[in-house]
Amino acid sequence: MGVHLSDNERLDWLRLIRSQNVGPRPFRALIDHYGHARGALAALPQLARRGGASAPGRICTRAEAEREMASANAAGVAFVALGEPDYPLRLAMIDDAPPLIAVRGDRAALARPTVAIVGARNASAAGIKFAERLARQLGEAGLVIASGLARGIDAAAHRGSLTTGTVAAIAGGHNSIYPPEHAPLAQAIAQNGVVLSEMPLDHEPRARDFPRRNRLISGLAAGVVVIEAAQRSGSLITARMALEQGREVFAVPGSPLDPRCEGTNNLLKQGAAPVTEAADVTAALRPIFERPQQLSAQEPDHPIAPGDTGEPDGLERDRIVALLGPTPVGIDDLIRLSGLPPAIVRTVLLELELAGTLERHGGGLVSLVPTI
Amino acid sequence: MGVHLSDNERLDWLRLIRSQNVGPRPFRALIDHYGHARGALAALPQLARRGGASAPGRICTRAEAEREMASANAAGVAFVALGEPDYPLRLAMIDDAPPLIAVRGDRAALARPTVAIVGARNASAAGIKFAERLARQLGEAGLVIASGLARGIDAAAHRGSLTTGTVAAIAGGHNSIYPPEHAPLAQAIAQNGVVLSEMPLDHEPRARDFPRRNRLISGLAAGVVVIEAAQRSGSLITARMALEQGREVFAVPGSPLDPRCEGTNNLLKQGAAPVTEAADVTAALRPIFERPQQLSAQEPDHPIAPGDTGEPDGLERDRIVALLGPTPVGIDDLIRLSGLPPAIVRTVLLELELAGTLERHGGGLVSLVPTI
Repeated sequence: MGVHLSDNERLDWLRLIRSQNVGPRPFRALIDHYGHARGALAALPQLARRGGASAPGRICTRAEAEREMASANAAGVAFVALGEPDYPLRLAMIDDAPPLIAVRGDRAALARPTVAIVGARNASAAGIKFAERLARQLGEAGLVIASGLARGIDAAAHRGSLTTGTVAAIAGGHNSIYPPEHAPLAQAIAQNGVVLSEMPLDHEPRARDFPRRNRLISGLAAGVVVIEAAQRSGSLITARMALEQGREVFAVPGSPLDPRCEGTNNLLKQGAAPVTEAADVTAALRPIFERPQQLSAQEPDHPIAPGDTGEPDGLERDRIVALLGPTPVGIDDLIRLSGLPPAIVRTVLLELELAGTLERHGGGLVSLVPTI
Repeated sequence: MGVHLSDNERLDWLRLIRSQNVGPRPFRALIDHYGHARGALAALPQLARRGGASAPGRICTRAEAEREMASANAAGVAFVALGEPDYPLRLAMIDDAPPLIAVRGDRAALARPTVAIVGARNASAAGIKFAERLARQLGEAGLVIASGLARGIDAAAHRGSLTTGTVAAIAGGHNSIYPPEHAPLAQAIAQNGVVLSEMPLDHEPRARDFPRRNRLISGLAAGVVVIEAAQRSGSLITARMALEQGREVFAVPGSPLDPRCEGTNNLLKQGAAPVTEAADVTAALRPIFERPQQLSAQEPDHPIAPGDTGEPDGLERDRIVALLGPTPVGIDDLIRLSGLPPAIVRTVLLELELAGTLERHGGGLVSLVPTI
């Protein structure tokens, strides 16, 4: 891609991604359609109206974006755009890569081979000790350690790799480090590594931000090592996202009598590679790191061709909406069942998404947001 | 096979297997060649002499066999011959199945679906607790538990399955239970299960008898569960034998910081199925137990046809011996390189074995026993 944004373009990207209902996927579809963020910003109200929104979604103003940019500068935080040279190549390849990442620290860490280590917040002493040792050994082997700055395993993984390079992907904004007592750790990470967020600087993380953030941890890495994870824990979400992103999943075995090992042992049953020492990870990842990385980010499956003037009419829109419900259905099925051109279907879906009535799931599935 | 030995034949079998240098494989070759144990006993001195033995190997006398039979009867121990209805079908299918097993207890247990549980003697409290629980749950699911009566995991596995059925394969004779403090446990096992040995009644187990015994534990079972095993431990030998015998291998995950879990975690890395609950075992073994069992024991690859009169001459014997050395070589290679008929080569090898100068390894490999 080789994107290089001007200051003005970066501000437009920030406005677009901070506008209501514009997530990473609609952002990409809009840029594909309009060629640049400014045109997309101008079209947003009309698109959302056509998607059925009673009121147009809130658009981030230029002044707001300028304020965020200024306080980012003051805090030593820089915005890196998807496709720019400093944007991590592996992260760029996930299909919901954040268009802009706010980074603090030594960006060189983002270009190095990376493995993620995640696990239980209420980890055992043995788990914490093992996480710190594994991170140190993998760091000495030349790998950057990505994790989530959480209590327990995450913090131990960062601590073990502070001097060799570590990246913390956080769920809130840079001015709202969670948990608060890890602010000094975040500060230390930024010395040889990076703290990274896709959220507004002052955003306080909510429960739903953590699973969303987990895709960044796995997205940054070639593989994810899970150390101690109960069933239905956030670490397993990271493992699932890693699988969806085509990353390697490793799990550290543990006693069947310890509920903190239930999730990791189940990962082993599902085929995750067992890890008891650093060599288990390096041996598995070496061939992956030795493969030349793709130089371009993954394109959307069916980009909307720029200049495509196929505007859906009301009848077509109704036909697609009638096919949608709360149960996720495949976009390909929608195209087949509606009998409409793919470009029309995709445009309607984008409009519905911008109107806040469509939800996208993995694997090309979409559903209507249930009205409460 | 459907063998039913008369008392006299059983005595001949006992004499033959108790004679020097007659292990399970030569035993089978001799029976195949002579049709019955009596003819083999008569031929032993000549065969060993032809194999180069300076003095003929010690042949068990009829009086000795009668004495062992009598003290077995007194101790409630019965001899079951390979191929008899009470001989465990799975055990009969391993290629070095003992021709006679000495069993004490309820032989019905030998006919039921069986899984082995083995592990560390110096097991952790958690490992012992888990072993006992797993054995109980697998017992409740209808499986007989096989193990080796050792301290630690083995004893816990037997204890957990005392009432549902358990089989202890021991390395010594029935009158020499090891460790001695497990004599009451052996007594309890014989109530609902079986204590089983291939060694003479008064045989005190030596170090080399334990690995040999381990093939019986895995041979009795459709799968082997390993709970806590250090590297280079006996449990790993059982796991290796299980693999060679085509059995399933299961390993219970454990902390990488506990050396007692190093062996089991390595088994996981090598592809063993992780086990944290009984269902992991029953689900994997159910299809195996539901398959109809082969009704005949595995035949030797190239049985010596009865009545085959091809007697090797001295020249042929020398040619084969010249091809042998301390490094194991394949029998097929010997046949090819010597240019001799397979029957001749096999007869020479049998003679060398009976003379105590040939050692057989897995996979059809043989070597000369190094002269010290």
